Amino acid sequence: MKRFLAVVHVLGFTMALFATTMFVPMVWSVILEDGQLMLFIQSFAIALLIGVVMWLGTLAYRAELRPRDGFLLVSMVWSFLPLLGTIPLLLYFNGNGMHLSFTDAYFESMSGLTATGGTLLSNVDEMAPSVNLWRFTMHWVGGMGIIVLAVAILPLLGVGGHQVFRAETPGPMKEEKLTPRIASTAKALYAIYFGLSIVCFLAYRAAGMSWFDAWCQMASTVALGGFSTHDSSFAYFDSPLIEAICIVFMLLSGINFATHFKAFQQGGIRAYSRCPEAIPFVATVLGMGVLIGLYLWVTDVYQDPLTALRYAVFNTVSIATTAGFANTDYEQWPLIAPLLMILLGMFSTSSGSTGGGIKMIRVLMLIKQTRQEMIGILHPHAVTPVLLKGRLIPGKVLTSVLAFMLLYGLSIAVLVALMLLSGAEPRTAFTAIIACLNNIGPGLGDVGPSSNYLSLNDFQIWLCSFAMMIGRLELFTVLVLFTSGFWRK
Amino acid sequence: MKRFLAVVHVLGFTMALFATTMFVPMVWSVILEDGQLMLFIQSFAIALLIGVVMWLGTLAYRAELRPRDGFLLVSMVWSFLPLLGTIPLLLYFNGNGMHLSFTDAYFESMSGLTATGGTLLSNVDEMAPSVNLWRFTMHWVGGMGIIVLAVAILPLLGVGGHQVFRAETPGPMKEEKLTPRIASTAKALYAIYFGLSIVCFLAYRAAGMSWFDAWCQMASTVALGGFSTHDSSFAYFDSPLIEAICIVFMLLSGINFATHFKAFQQGGIRAYSRCPEAIPFVATVLGMGVLIGLYLWVTDVYQDPLTALRYAVFNTVSIATTAGFANTDYEQWPLIAPLLMILLGMFSTSSGSTGGGIKMIRVLMLIKQTRQEMIGILHPHAVTPVLLKGRLIPGKVLTSVLAFMLLYGLSIAVLVALMLLSGAEPRTAFTAIIACLNNIGPGLGDVGPSSNYLSLNDFQIWLCSFAMMIGRLELFTVLVLFTSGFWRK
Ligand SMILES: [K+]
Ligand SMILES: [K+]
Repeated sequence: MKRFLAVVHVLGFTMALFATTMFVPMVWSVILEDGQLMLFIQSFAIALLIGVVMWLGTLAYRAELRPRDGFLLVSMVWSFLPLLGTIPLLLYFNGNGMHLSFTDAYFESMSGLTATGGTLLSNVDEMAPSVNLWRFTMHWVGGMGIIVLAVAILPLLGVGGHQVFRAETPGPMKEEKLTPRIASTAKALYAIYFGLSIVCFLAYRAAGMSWFDAWCQMASTVALGGFSTHDSSFAYFDSPLIEAICIVFMLLSGINFATHFKAFQQGGIRAYSRCPEAIPFVATVLGMGVLIGLYLWVTDVYQDPLTALRYAVFNTVSIATTAGFANTDYEQWPLIAPLLMILLGMFSTSSGSTGGGIKMIRVLMLIKQTRQEMIGILHPHAVTPVLLKGRLIPGKVLTSVLAFMLLYGLSIAVLVALMLLSGAEPRTAFTAIIACLNNIGPGLGDVGPSSNYLSLNDFQIWLCSFAMMIGRLELFTVLVLFTSGFWRK
Repeated sequence: MKRFLAVVHVLGFTMALFATTMFVPMVWSVILEDGQLMLFIQSFAIALLIGVVMWLGTLAYRAELRPRDGFLLVSMVWSFLPLLGTIPLLLYFNGNGMHLSFTDAYFESMSGLTATGGTLLSNVDEMAPSVNLWRFTMHWVGGMGIIVLAVAILPLLGVGGHQVFRAETPGPMKEEKLTPRIASTAKALYAIYFGLSIVCFLAYRAAGMSWFDAWCQMASTVALGGFSTHDSSFAYFDSPLIEAICIVFMLLSGINFATHFKAFQQGGIRAYSRCPEAIPFVATVLGMGVLIGLYLWVTDVYQDPLTALRYAVFNTVSIATTAGFANTDYEQWPLIAPLLMILLGMFSTSSGSTGGGIKMIRVLMLIKQTRQEMIGILHPHAVTPVLLKGRLIPGKVLTSVLAFMLLYGLSIAVLVALMLLSGAEPRTAFTAIIACLNNIGPGLGDVGPSSNYLSLNDFQIWLCSFAMMIGRLELFTVLVLFTSGFWRK
């Protein structure tokens, strides 16, 4: 109980800190004069109060956290911040005669903070801009949290793919205090994230978006979130230039931010070719985009090859990087196309990026291991170590991938079964869970690109919220809390 | 080339041997006086001729096979025997004014020999009994081959789950000649298989089936094949007693035959509790059957709880053991039920049984590994070996499971993509491939329990035939042939 309260202490501080991000919509509300300043001041006050009470109420239990407490902290942060995120949404909608349930608001906030981008709202074009912008602020803040989580926190907890492979966290390190290492790594990564955000923002503006649209779409792009200021997503802009900018920044955001940092430090692009994931990721995603473009042209979905390429590449990159934008209703294409896009969304993004899913590093390890297995079968006496970029992958890391894959498959099976049991139509059940667990956003069927999550019932919405959270925290971080071993002394 | 011809030499002999199994339908043709004796004599002559020519033509290249040649041999046996299997079918149908294409006949034979049980034929009730019986003969012979393959041949090739775990094939052993070990193991297993078959046959007869029906259904049951002498499968008999017998023998056939042999040797049932798979397999399958029964009763699909239990348990055991019989159109149930049944079909049968799929042993290793991973995350310095029934599972075996799972997932993805590209409706595409790759038989949609594979086009039928073969040979055996390493000197 003492340790739990020590975790709550840090959680309270994090929540108070998160409350301050409401200054962003406040500023925009003033700029745009949309009359929501008061709403955000109220929201801020409530959120801050909750955080501070939790923080002060547990001051007596303040203690240095052990790595093991990290699981609880991270899981609680990702469950409690969305609670605060609901405040402005609930105040706005229910205060303006539009009903928004707590379930729906929590889903929307979770979708924001996990950068999933599945939405329950329609007519977002008519929303008060600053309230709409709050959703994007959650994306952007969430994206920041995701990177630090993946590159600095999860490795300390012994969860994740890339970090373990790089073995840059030697054993004893894990026993050290959490803070110093996180702080220094985080600073470097924040700098990259900021830089990318600014360039993306200006590029969108230069390509013709309004300042407001550019800001929001920037947040959604670099976090690989997927919310849009328009119900019709990128189809609203109908601009190949804007789409090209989006593609570039989605790809950049799908690369490990530690790799960006190294490239920046070294002042060259060699870091990318040395990174095991960057090139396979970009090549897979773009290659599939081009293939689908050819397919859509050959099958006469689009008569013009360039048009086919434009729509195929944009939507493929968007789903494969787990951003989740759309510039057309790609569910109208032959089903194989969206299915392949979603399949890539499950597998292709890099660890340490803002993308979701299994991550390219695990896929590469699986492929290498399978190749070695084939060789081992043919040459039973040969020693066949598994190498990635010339570095040996320890057997322990391979077996941890195995465990991850089982949990991943099991999570999908259980969640889909619950969706079906609660009455969802099969296409919706499968793709909603996959879209949420991999933090993609749109699925197919009732949760497809031309639709949203509104048709799901409350139980299903909670399932999806849960899927987003465990997916974002790479399963182990949350699921370890459900083991008796965790709660034993 | 020399080695290839040495393999063809053994293949020819195997084919000639297989031709002699046509004596079975010959005898039944005489008993039942259905006038097909001549057809089988012709078929036998053709098949024998092909086999003998291949055997004699390569006599000069006769050589002791290396383990590595086993991959080619096994893959070729399972592709060429179905060729011979088509002869009686083609002669019968095309000789009696009913068109049967080679593609369809090959599918039917492959489905027979891999004990998959998906069929392209309808009106089987009206077929000449001995020709119908030929399909069951293929099931029975196939089942025999499968057991020997799994328990004696694949371990020598370093493929498969159970054998590697038991480590009863020490390294140097692999270099030994193939023949002696196979011969002794095979004899023991054949004895068990024969014994099980005779008891099953008599039980069916005693429960009211005709001698002919009992014979055919026996072959289909012990091989976990799924062909039936009636279009309506077990619904034709409408007998709880017959269904109960079927359940018992499906469960027995889903247990490792080496375990049966040990139990027989020791004259007790301790071998089953020592076997890592037997109890989890039976418990999972029966448990799910009861759960689905409860669900069907609660959701009012059946008003009577016993009726619900009867249909649920029979069909669940049938699909989960990969037999593939049906006594009702379970696709009319809420979709979650057939999906869970198919999911078990992918995972639950034992290695060394006649069942298909991933096999319980791999699943157990995955689960154990995941548990250890959780413990390892909580206690980074603890040594966490993975144990199964008190025996250490080497890391090498775990990583080979990892490779298997990747190949399995990849095979499904590629084959489903090809099904969709060739125009199959999604439910059909997914379940046809899963039903074939796991040697279950019926899927859902166009290939569901009330339908058959007839609606697929030729390309799709070939895909399904391929899926049945690679699934039956545990993927590696066939797929290793597609590596350049295999063909290098
Ligand atoms: K997303
Ligand atoms: K079967």
